[in-house]
Amino acid sequence: MKPSDVHRVPGFLANGIHTGIKPNGGKDLALIFSIRPAAAAGVFTTNCFKAAPVLLDMERIRSGVAQAVIANSGVANAATGSEGLSDALAVSRAASAELGIADEMVLVASTGVIGHRLPLRKIIGGVKRLAAGLHVGGIPDAEAAIMTTDRFPKIASRKGVIGKKEVTLCGIAKGAGMIQPNMATMLAFVMTDAAIARDALDPMFRQSVAGSFNAISVDGCMSTNDTAVILANGVAGNHPIRRGSRYLGAFGEILSDLLSELARGLVRDGEGATKVIEITVAGARTLPDAQRVAYAIANSNLVKTAFFGGDPNWGRIISAAGSVGIDLPVDQVRLFIEDLLLFAEGTGIGGRERELAEIMARPEIKVRLELGMGRRAWTICTSDLTLDYVKINAHYHT
Amino acid sequence: MKPSDVHRVPGFLANGIHTGIKPNGGKDLALIFSIRPAAAAGVFTTNCFKAAPVLLDMERIRSGVAQAVIANSGVANAATGSEGLSDALAVSRAASAELGIADEMVLVASTGVIGHRLPLRKIIGGVKRLAAGLHVGGIPDAEAAIMTTDRFPKIASRKGVIGKKEVTLCGIAKGAGMIQPNMATMLAFVMTDAAIARDALDPMFRQSVAGSFNAISVDGCMSTNDTAVILANGVAGNHPIRRGSRYLGAFGEILSDLLSELARGLVRDGEGATKVIEITVAGARTLPDAQRVAYAIANSNLVKTAFFGGDPNWGRIISAAGSVGIDLPVDQVRLFIEDLLLFAEGTGIGGRERELAEIMARPEIKVRLELGMGRRAWTICTSDLTLDYVKINAHYHT
Repeated sequence: MKPSDVHRVPGFLANGIHTGIKPNGGKDLALIFSIRPAAAAGVFTTNCFKAAPVLLDMERIRSGVAQAVIANSGVANAATGSEGLSDALAVSRAASAELGIADEMVLVASTGVIGHRLPLRKIIGGVKRLAAGLHVGGIPDAEAAIMTTDRFPKIASRKGVIGKKEVTLCGIAKGAGMIQPNMATMLAFVMTDAAIARDALDPMFRQSVAGSFNAISVDGCMSTNDTAVILANGVAGNHPIRRGSRYLGAFGEILSDLLSELARGLVRDGEGATKVIEITVAGARTLPDAQRVAYAIANSNLVKTAFFGGDPNWGRIISAAGSVGIDLPVDQVRLFIEDLLLFAEGTGIGGRERELAEIMARPEIKVRLELGMGRRAWTICTSDLTLDYVKINAHYHT
Repeated sequence: MKPSDVHRVPGFLANGIHTGIKPNGGKDLALIFSIRPAAAAGVFTTNCFKAAPVLLDMERIRSGVAQAVIANSGVANAATGSEGLSDALAVSRAASAELGIADEMVLVASTGVIGHRLPLRKIIGGVKRLAAGLHVGGIPDAEAAIMTTDRFPKIASRKGVIGKKEVTLCGIAKGAGMIQPNMATMLAFVMTDAAIARDALDPMFRQSVAGSFNAISVDGCMSTNDTAVILANGVAGNHPIRRGSRYLGAFGEILSDLLSELARGLVRDGEGATKVIEITVAGARTLPDAQRVAYAIANSNLVKTAFFGGDPNWGRIISAAGSVGIDLPVDQVRLFIEDLLLFAEGTGIGGRERELAEIMARPEIKVRLELGMGRRAWTICTSDLTLDYVKINAHYHT
């Protein structure tokens, strides 16, 4: 099967076209359309300098209903003030007029350089063609149109059964990271034909995002534009999933699994990344403690360059862990890379250089730090810091 | 004058030799000796995984007196447990025996790879030669012996007058950063012949360190070994500077000026650095707020790579500032690079690309972010993130 056959969701059409924003001729404008109003939920950046489309979406998604998403790549429409807001509204109005739906039913997203106005003429000039080309196999085209420095598309689908009805989920994503994302932006759009009550969708989506997009980190930077949105249009005809329903957990698991695949893809495609490092911090007294230590390790440039170099310099891992301001019981802390115990009782354990060097050369590496303080744990995925990361980011703007 | 003539402090002898730790034949063991017991104060890493020499020094410096510092480069003696502590003690005892002073009067420091035992035979085997070679012009040799990836020595001297007596200060440093330092370690040793009461020296030194070494950042990593120590031996014969004395402020200013020069040197020599970026966050409600925002900007890999690339992508600066969890008044925030206003009233100010590109090509660049929330400000210096940073740190260990 072609991707366009796999990645279809009943009741959803999509498209992606080139309008002239990307100088290389790549697709740069995406449209997702549900044939009927869908329950909608969203998670957005907590950055103070929220981009105009984020401000617009946060307002609109309060209704819990949406029917379309229009997204451009190349320009982030961030730090553009009230003019940026009217630009986002203009894009929305062009889409809603073309689709014949209420303007409030359109969500808008942008990704790219901060501080530039949207090229409105190009975008609005492309909307008619974009809408005319909507098709059931168009989700991969929409994905292509939201990519910026991404090296491969992040697209995943799942099927499940809810009360004897088959439901389908498909998600697309670009960028890297959510709480701690890369570039200007992580975008993720999830489409499902499941029927889900609005008040059940929002908490379930937030929980799934917390365990997936919010558990990855590429470079510790948080974008102005991060947006994750789910649309559930109910075309599957299942009895709507409500709060407290036994189907809520089942659907939530499928959703989490889907988002985790997308999130892993974001890390694997982290700018310049050559390795995926899964960091588990266990034995923490509280979940925030586990998260702080895990992020400190994941965001340490010394740790990330060591993994890039395949250098078994595990001292940098404990040094990063020790720097967050939590009073760790040094003699209790144990560090593993894969199954190798490297640090315990306050001391490094020598004589494992050969096994360690072999592990460090792998493309996926598991790190486990046990703090010995309690029972809470957190796992995050990160990538290495490479020469290509620097090359990509030193010259992205110009 | 040769450096060995400039950098002398009455009553201090120093030396640095090669003992075989550094494979390239460079100096790797340093000794500083005061001809009489000196008032001593120290500031040490807050990392939980403190290296053995740090633990030893923190204990010893409580007396407020010391007479010698012995420091090696190449191996950090960190994450080495109780064996590491006995190694540090063995080094101390070798030095005190050779110098004929009480063992408690010796401070020990190490810098290099974490998790390896000290090569005791090499170090102790070198102590006799090290002590025998102590000389008044030996401070630059000591500096050379504590360098690791440093590209140039960090050494500075000052003279001042305290109550008609001339006093001299000289400081040496290696590494980069203190609260947020690089590699395994920032070390700094300051020698002065001024007479200073012990209870006056400690708070003055902490304050000077806070405004110098603690106001720089290279990669946001904190070492297990960071150590800054001052020895004041009173040979100048001034009336001892006491708490509340009018000379305390005068001496503190000279000391701060000296430490700032050393700290700037650390940033300029940050691993792979090509630029020094001075970041001022003003208009904060509290000093910790100003510091948090300043560090978020200084430690953002996206900001640091943009400066490396000479890329006027100022959106990354406000994005980093907006991500720390302080609710910034977006419409009040103003961003300057040098004198160019780039962001105000929630919007980027266009049409300055040419001037900005010219500024971004300079080796030293000032960034000023006004938050519009209050009257507190903080300035830190950082360096860019470069291809060489990644190369150096991907392969330091092996």
